[in-house]
Amino acid sequence: MFEDDVSDATVSKAEYEEQLPALRVDLLNLQFDLRSADFPVLIVIDGADRPGCDEVLNLLGSWLDTRYLKAHGFGPPSDEERERPLFWRYWRVLPRRGRIASFVSGWNWNCIVERGRKNSSKKEFRARLKHNHMFERTLTADGALLIKLWLHLPKEELEERVRKADQGDADAWQILPEDREILDRYKSGLKIIGEMFEAAQQSTVPWHVINSSCDRHRNLEVGRILRDALSQALTEKRQPNTIAPAISNAPTDYLSTIDLSKELTRDDYSQAKDKLQYKLLRLSRRASASGLSTVMAFEGWDAAGKGGAIRRLTSAMQARHYRVVPISAPTEDEKSRHYLWRFWHRLPRAGNVLIFDRSWYGRVLVERVEGFAQEDEWRRAYEEINDFEEQLVTSGMILLKFWLHIDADEQLRRFRERETTSYKRYKIVHEDYRNREKWDAYVAAANEMISHTHKEGAPWHLISGTNKYSARIEILRIVCEALEKRLD
Amino acid sequence: MFEDDVSDATVSKAEYEEQLPALRVDLLNLQFDLRSADFPVLIVIDGADRPGCDEVLNLLGSWLDTRYLKAHGFGPPSDEERERPLFWRYWRVLPRRGRIASFVSGWNWNCIVERGRKNSSKKEFRARLKHNHMFERTLTADGALLIKLWLHLPKEELEERVRKADQGDADAWQILPEDREILDRYKSGLKIIGEMFEAAQQSTVPWHVINSSCDRHRNLEVGRILRDALSQALTEKRQPNTIAPAISNAPTDYLSTIDLSKELTRDDYSQAKDKLQYKLLRLSRRASASGLSTVMAFEGWDAAGKGGAIRRLTSAMQARHYRVVPISAPTEDEKSRHYLWRFWHRLPRAGNVLIFDRSWYGRVLVERVEGFAQEDEWRRAYEEINDFEEQLVTSGMILLKFWLHIDADEQLRRFRERETTSYKRYKIVHEDYRNREKWDAYVAAANEMISHTHKEGAPWHLISGTNKYSARIEILRIVCEALEKRLD
Repeated sequence: MFEDDVSDATVSKAEYEEQLPALRVDLLNLQFDLRSADFPVLIVIDGADRPGCDEVLNLLGSWLDTRYLKAHGFGPPSDEERERPLFWRYWRVLPRRGRIASFVSGWNWNCIVERGRKNSSKKEFRARLKHNHMFERTLTADGALLIKLWLHLPKEELEERVRKADQGDADAWQILPEDREILDRYKSGLKIIGEMFEAAQQSTVPWHVINSSCDRHRNLEVGRILRDALSQALTEKRQPNTIAPAISNAPTDYLSTIDLSKELTRDDYSQAKDKLQYKLLRLSRRASASGLSTVMAFEGWDAAGKGGAIRRLTSAMQARHYRVVPISAPTEDEKSRHYLWRFWHRLPRAGNVLIFDRSWYGRVLVERVEGFAQEDEWRRAYEEINDFEEQLVTSGMILLKFWLHIDADEQLRRFRERETTSYKRYKIVHEDYRNREKWDAYVAAANEMISHTHKEGAPWHLISGTNKYSARIEILRIVCEALEKRLD
Repeated sequence: MFEDDVSDATVSKAEYEEQLPALRVDLLNLQFDLRSADFPVLIVIDGADRPGCDEVLNLLGSWLDTRYLKAHGFGPPSDEERERPLFWRYWRVLPRRGRIASFVSGWNWNCIVERGRKNSSKKEFRARLKHNHMFERTLTADGALLIKLWLHLPKEELEERVRKADQGDADAWQILPEDREILDRYKSGLKIIGEMFEAAQQSTVPWHVINSSCDRHRNLEVGRILRDALSQALTEKRQPNTIAPAISNAPTDYLSTIDLSKELTRDDYSQAKDKLQYKLLRLSRRASASGLSTVMAFEGWDAAGKGGAIRRLTSAMQARHYRVVPISAPTEDEKSRHYLWRFWHRLPRAGNVLIFDRSWYGRVLVERVEGFAQEDEWRRAYEEINDFEEQLVTSGMILLKFWLHIDADEQLRRFRERETTSYKRYKIVHEDYRNREKWDAYVAAANEMISHTHKEGAPWHLISGTNKYSARIEILRIVCEALEKRLD
């Protein structure tokens, strides 16, 4: 068991006062250097010593420059948080590169408590651990320095503290009902924690376990661990995760299975459209009223008809309930965080529809083909995306992914047509033509993308865009069916 | 009365279909041009025709490119919104320059409803109108194009619609309890609305009143008003608001009243600090528990000791409850909105402390002196800031503003000292020395700032920074007193 190996050293006041000043100067200087580094630092502070976690959080605030450090403690979620997937509350406060954020009672402690109270089954607990690890791996693979501190409190020490509180000892004012609960569940808790540690050892950043019985010992340990980690991250050339994740299945040539010859006349379209839009209007009102949210991602060739299809959807929805987000080059704020941040932090409140015109799949399409993302970056994106989408779906949102397909000749025809349109929205840029030169590379990337992310609950809908009418009707129908299925 | 002047024209289906297509092409092209313009567009849609407001909101979504248009409808506030000042929910969704946002049931309608239900007194209603106008003026003075559409529904028309709904007419499904309430309060409502219109005429953008009895007439009117307003804003060279607001009182020389000779020995400091920090610790815990928030702004000369004073405060607070935000050059996201946006959208949830190391006062200090803001911009900032602060205070937050003062010799001494410190945080940059050359201009700006923004409920605390010990103690004491006063 891990608790047997934890040092129970104590530190005298004299020793503490001798060692602390130099440590603080080091930390402050490292934090200064970090400000111009290209990675963020996340410090996770958890453990059975709950008052100790808060003390360490405060300690960091007094040691470091608080202008570039943000402390987060997580209590019960707000209504805005409850309406989004579990990890939304963590994604929304992710630090920018060069900054430090500390977390108490975050994703790790939370899932220990849930399991300790038997609010989650063994299976659910393991699924949660997997999401935790995926979250941490997603950030660390992107360069984030993650430091996980576990403040261990031996059972006898906790017993002693609770006893003192019972006797009305003034020093024990910090003992809360939470601490008594930890004592009550101590033994079963150790097992749960042990499992978490073991899983972490295999798949993510391992914990630093610190004996929290002696405050001074704990503080110096925390300081040293931070100093060493920061100094190592800042001085050594950081090793990018160059090992591309193994991808098991060979990609299927999905795109060639799309029947591009589908036809629909204008009259049939018009009739079907009116019927489906009326249906969608009623369904989306019911979805809003019942708090059901939908997230859609539109991908496909330029000029395949994404914008037109989206407009046929939104014109049958209440404007206050939908949002269309066009994805192009990231802003400064977006560039200073993980690429998924711009999608996570936009997730809608309950009862709303969010439509991405191009999406997180840009990572494995345009960024891959144009070389904006390194090979290891786009390779690991598949599992990051799968985890993101799994969370959307698990939280109860509907997720719909569309690939709009046309062939290269049809695209050229449409580009030429656009050049003469009276709608400036269709202004054609030089880049559009240039992208055509990489058609085959995009085909390969799209096939690979679909192969790795076509999942139950998050399937791809491959739509022929040759005939715009049939494409729009198909998409309207898919959206209606998805809503109907969930509302009935 | 305004309703007598509203045209009751109707438009035939043929006429509608003849006129609409060209209007839509115009709108779409104007929206395209807007994307590279340097101002945002806010469309406010309100009026007695509630279903009509939603229809127009949807209509805009079908006419325009929804990727660059966001529709907002405001229902009951979320808990995160309730914990901030009234206008936070509007500030948080302000569009970037080049984008369009539409608002239904926003600040104007809301205050009509409050007054109609007699939830606000005549006096409160007028105070609200003042805030509304200040909000609108703040945005329009900054370049925003604000278009206010009032969908008027004559009483007989509303009666007819409600009657139809009572008879179970399928076309009247949109009639909600809200509409019946409007009918019940129609007469008193007209008076309230009239007062709002009159006030708007004098102090902000006037309303376009549109008769909503005939849908087609209404739609064309909306389209034309938007087209004309957009086209005018985009083609004419926009007139910056060059008329500097009259500033009534001549500035007082506040800075020279600060007694820079205050002394405090290290021992006295140490004793007083321990006592005050312990007090602050307990007070801030109580504040967190009771949901009382505090916002602090620190201004003053470089090297006056702002950072040190802030650290003496935060080390006596729970890290998870405070946040220190250093204000330097704005990010891209911040630059694309009104300068107050970066402060508004950061306002803390209930029970938290937000400390700005330099603040919104930069507008009338560094931006004024260095010429980053035009004269009319910094001149009107005084009343914008006063309105912002009044809202903070009215919402129940504690607002504390500190000016830390030292003289030019002391600053030079500290700059030289910093150059030899082991803390990199104090790295001195060339700019620091350069700013010293404008000392007198900064003195004048600071005196004028204090003169115009030293208000009851938002007073300035002028602190001598010559002796760092006395400055820190004074600030600790002021914070404790402010918390004590509110918690008792």
